[in-house]
Amino acid sequence: MRVLGVDPGLTRCGVGVVEGVAGRPLTMLGVGVVRTPVDADLSHRLLAVEQGIEQWLDEHRPEIVAVERVFSQHNVRTVMGTAQASAVAMLCAARRGIPVALHTPSEVKAAVTGSGRAEKAQVGAMVTRLLRLSAPPKPADAADALALAICHIWRAPAQNRLQQAVARHTVNATKGRTA
Amino acid sequence: MRVLGVDPGLTRCGVGVVEGVAGRPLTMLGVGVVRTPVDADLSHRLLAVEQGIEQWLDEHRPEIVAVERVFSQHNVRTVMGTAQASAVAMLCAARRGIPVALHTPSEVKAAVTGSGRAEKAQVGAMVTRLLRLSAPPKPADAADALALAICHIWRAPAQNRLQQAVARHTVNATKGRTA
Repeated sequence: MRVLGVDPGLTRCGVGVVEGVAGRPLTMLGVGVVRTPVDADLSHRLLAVEQGIEQWLDEHRPEIVAVERVFSQHNVRTVMGTAQASAVAMLCAARRGIPVALHTPSEVKAAVTGSGRAEKAQVGAMVTRLLRLSAPPKPADAADALALAICHIWRAPAQNRLQQAVARHTVNATKGRTA
Repeated sequence: MRVLGVDPGLTRCGVGVVEGVAGRPLTMLGVGVVRTPVDADLSHRLLAVEQGIEQWLDEHRPEIVAVERVFSQHNVRTVMGTAQASAVAMLCAARRGIPVALHTPSEVKAAVTGSGRAEKAQVGAMVTRLLRLSAPPKPADAADALALAICHIWRAPAQNRLQQAVARHTVNATKGRTA
């Protein structure tokens, strides 16, 4: 499974591509940051995010795009930009028929460090170890994007089993009714 | 000046096209709502909003797209969807090189009713009168989109004068330094 992780943001949008399956060593195929100028018009910043994401999709052809689920607890101004950048990433994927998965920041931290409340540095250290890199990817947004991709690869089997169980249950329930 | 007003939303995204200049009677060229299914995947809803906005841009070729500036005071869940739908509208415009103007809800209300705290019904009534319609456009999102377009047409001359004054001031200041 090849996953593009996106840590959405207008100023810095982290992107990272990881390939692998749960239970086997993972491979990093690319990591980077899409940046847009702080003083540019909002619509042009969104356009720059779109162009950046499109390049990553063109180059790496991921099967899934994993995007951080945005909450509004934090700084209101920042969160609106984050929500808007995440919308652009989701839109780019949907336009190509690529499924989008959303994971919360604590799901991502828990997946790579074992704790949903891990600090940035700990996430960076684990991403470095899990992908056998020589140093933590910088900036943190880039490391977070890789963590999102890893989180998706590791959570996907559980999510699939859950969906299959629900499907089986539905089939059995239907059989029960028709029997 | 031909303006596409967009009242952003995921469930109902209001769209309205108004043509005219400040100080003259205005003409409505179209009004409607782009809807997306509540139970669809978020990325597919954003894609549906994009396809809807693209159709309106194709059909009416506006010179400006006026979008409601989204704040986060209200319901947090709704606001994230609104911010994301507004990002899609801004992106569609920017991709075509169409300038985007943002107006706050109170600027829009003040422009069409004289009060920034006017109720929905009052905005609908004034839109109906100003565009010489036989009945208020329904739903309210459609009326709000027209109000945004009207607001832009009426505010644009003041904004342009302000920009020209700033430009003149900058030129004079530069002259002053070089003299």
